[in-house]
Amino acid sequence: RSAAALRPAQGTRDHHPAQMALRERLFRTVVRCFKRHGAAAIDTPVLELREMLMEKYGDNSRLIYELQDQGGELLALRYDLTVPFARYLAMNKITNIKRYHIAKVYRRDNPAMTRGRYREFYQCDFDIAGQFDPMIPDAECLKIVHEILSELQIGDFLIKVNDRRILNGVFAICGIPESKLLTMCSTLDKLDKMPWKEVRSEMVGEKGLSPEAADRIGEYVQLHGGMDLIGQLLQGPKLSQNKLAKEGLGDMKLLFEYLTLFGIVGKISFDLSLARGLDYYTGLITEAVLLQQENDHGEESVSVGSVAGGGRYDGLVGTFDPKGRKVPCVGVSIGIERIFSILEHRMKASGEKVRTTETQVMVATPQKHLLSARLKLISELWDAGIKAEMMYRKDPKLLKQLQYCEDMGIPLVAIIGEQELRDGVVKLRDVATREEVDIPREELAAEIRRRLKP
Amino acid sequence: RSAAALRPAQGTRDHHPAQMALRERLFRTVVRCFKRHGAAAIDTPVLELREMLMEKYGDNSRLIYELQDQGGELLALRYDLTVPFARYLAMNKITNIKRYHIAKVYRRDNPAMTRGRYREFYQCDFDIAGQFDPMIPDAECLKIVHEILSELQIGDFLIKVNDRRILNGVFAICGIPESKLLTMCSTLDKLDKMPWKEVRSEMVGEKGLSPEAADRIGEYVQLHGGMDLIGQLLQGPKLSQNKLAKEGLGDMKLLFEYLTLFGIVGKISFDLSLARGLDYYTGLITEAVLLQQENDHGEESVSVGSVAGGGRYDGLVGTFDPKGRKVPCVGVSIGIERIFSILEHRMKASGEKVRTTETQVMVATPQKHLLSARLKLISELWDAGIKAEMMYRKDPKLLKQLQYCEDMGIPLVAIIGEQELRDGVVKLRDVATREEVDIPREELAAEIRRRLKP
Repeated sequence: RSAAALRPAQGTRDHHPAQMALRERLFRTVVRCFKRHGAAAIDTPVLELREMLMEKYGDNSRLIYELQDQGGELLALRYDLTVPFARYLAMNKITNIKRYHIAKVYRRDNPAMTRGRYREFYQCDFDIAGQFDPMIPDAECLKIVHEILSELQIGDFLIKVNDRRILNGVFAICGIPESKLLTMCSTLDKLDKMPWKEVRSEMVGEKGLSPEAADRIGEYVQLHGGMDLIGQLLQGPKLSQNKLAKEGLGDMKLLFEYLTLFGIVGKISFDLSLARGLDYYTGLITEAVLLQQENDHGEESVSVGSVAGGGRYDGLVGTFDPKGRKVPCVGVSIGIERIFSILEHRMKASGEKVRTTETQVMVATPQKHLLSARLKLISELWDAGIKAEMMYRKDPKLLKQLQYCEDMGIPLVAIIGEQELRDGVVKLRDVATREEVDIPREELAAEIRRRLKP
Repeated sequence: RSAAALRPAQGTRDHHPAQMALRERLFRTVVRCFKRHGAAAIDTPVLELREMLMEKYGDNSRLIYELQDQGGELLALRYDLTVPFARYLAMNKITNIKRYHIAKVYRRDNPAMTRGRYREFYQCDFDIAGQFDPMIPDAECLKIVHEILSELQIGDFLIKVNDRRILNGVFAICGIPESKLLTMCSTLDKLDKMPWKEVRSEMVGEKGLSPEAADRIGEYVQLHGGMDLIGQLLQGPKLSQNKLAKEGLGDMKLLFEYLTLFGIVGKISFDLSLARGLDYYTGLITEAVLLQQENDHGEESVSVGSVAGGGRYDGLVGTFDPKGRKVPCVGVSIGIERIFSILEHRMKASGEKVRTTETQVMVATPQKHLLSARLKLISELWDAGIKAEMMYRKDPKLLKQLQYCEDMGIPLVAIIGEQELRDGVVKLRDVATREEVDIPREELAAEIRRRLKP
């Protein structure tokens, strides 16, 4: 007998069949969209060389799972799919690819499992690598987020966009030294969870900003809007004087033109408070948030925030290349775990029963001593491509066999008894209507297919 | 610039788009079969508690990847999908399930990557748990192996079967003490790679068997056949006297009856040398091997052995249950990596070009200053569910756009120029025939779908 604790590791979980059915549906929607946009799939290992990962995530590298030195290389589990993708591009000298990757990543974070935050979780990434004309791939990434969030019907959403160059410009004209840029970004990132007053006091208190500088920042980061706001800032006297910011604003204008052509500009918000924590972004940054919480049906409200995020990282691949050759990249990651947790709650609340198998027909016998007949018939059905089950009993009661169909949502029963064997037919029963019809045995597979045609 | 080595961890590999396309096709075939047999999907984490894994694999536990103690639990990477499945059953008190699980497992083994042996690799497992009448689920597992290997068209194969109880009986009547059973099994397992003479000398030399005992074993383990052999052994004076062996032989007879009804007995061989290394098997054991090697087309011959394996493990779940409650299980695992490596070699040898994306149409413009027109049209196509791409350039040359279609195997081009814009049409070009037809814009999506109907 094992003395081991009977549980999964902390922050990880098993997926039951009903959860897997939901997950499969989500992945199908996401992959369909990625393929619609011409992406190819790649895969990289879960294990990577430790030193490859360690230098890419700044502060967050403390969340990386390291493997024991078992007398070989020093290994770690991947933290995301972006850094391995950049490693893959540099290693294979690929300068041009549109790829998606759906796989598990690992973070030794504080799990908040009810909110869909785990230590092992899936990421669904779409990225475009290559030297192209400005903002065309960037616009497509936002279109993809829009398509997926719309198709999944998880409620109203908003896609926030900003640009690291604009943010850097704002910090520069407010007199923040470049050394404080990243720590400022991480403070700023809290603006969606706390009011400006509190963020300001963190900037002044913890980060040592002057109250005047904080106020100057405050003027900018509380701005959000669309084409109008971009126009104002481009025309305005201050920000447009900064070279980086001007570039960023010009590209933002282009982006909004493209998004208008895509017909999705209504869900996009140019939001100067959007910062995103990661170091490697160099241009566009984006984050999609749900606008309303799941609290109909009276169940407990599921707090969800961001359901997608991404941005442009033109420098990351170059850090892997021995000669520093850059490959510009832009990409988005769908927050599939949060979406899963919303839909899972919704499913539970609705009491809706999901089928966990796709079985089309149950092969059943009404009398004893007919196991051979069942085995022969089910084998014919399998070979004809029909999804079929039978009970693993020599002589199951017909009622038990029918009950199993009710429990599992199997729509049809193929009943074969002594009479049917003699007549060369099979009795096909509709589980819902209880109607039974004799079907010539050689036509059974075709009849089942006909009945279940969508 | 990173100083890190630019390579994947030893024994792991990236998958390029062409490899992913092949892998996707393999998984689709395997999953289709598993679903045809009524299996539900489950998932368990890659990380498991170290102590849960460590005691289940005997000698092989030295191959388990352990994680660093980073101030929490002691964790390890799963070695297979079977032990986590048993943990899952015990933990959730599930006594009856038919599930499949396709996921990566990890072994710190000596990689032999040209033969499809890696440290990170996929397993495709199908298992039936529950207390049922003998050999009905066992027969279905073999039917599944037969269906998958047939569908994948990887060449002629043979499914070997044996029973741990028969093997134990053979050892017992040859006078081998029970303490030597497992080590004997692992020596015996080499019979498919070396002749009996060498295996015998390992038994005598390294394992300390008497030459007489080895010869007695030799008489049995060189036997293989079908129903006849089972009958002979059941009638014979010696083996049928052993209680366990007699049970095993009786069930083997039943199995062959069921496999005859399934019409697959021609590919099954009752092989008394089949032992399989793992401790946890208690009844049926099975292994499928390819009968011929891949050496047409003159490429180097790919040495492949086993392409599927499995067996019955009635005791494993009980080792996790606090009260030792047993859940009988039987299952098979498809050796997808070896199959992948065979088909990959075959693909390379044939020079066949595989499409890595599913793009149906390229949206192109013949003149300059038409980026907006392209963006608007492609957006309409995406929204209509058409898989469409465009070049990320403001003013790409038409020839470049057509060349991209040739390179990527995109069958159609939707050309929109000034004339087409004025006429409200789109020129639809067939890449293969170069035929071009004007299609009213609102009918474009339907026409593309009609043209590409399979």
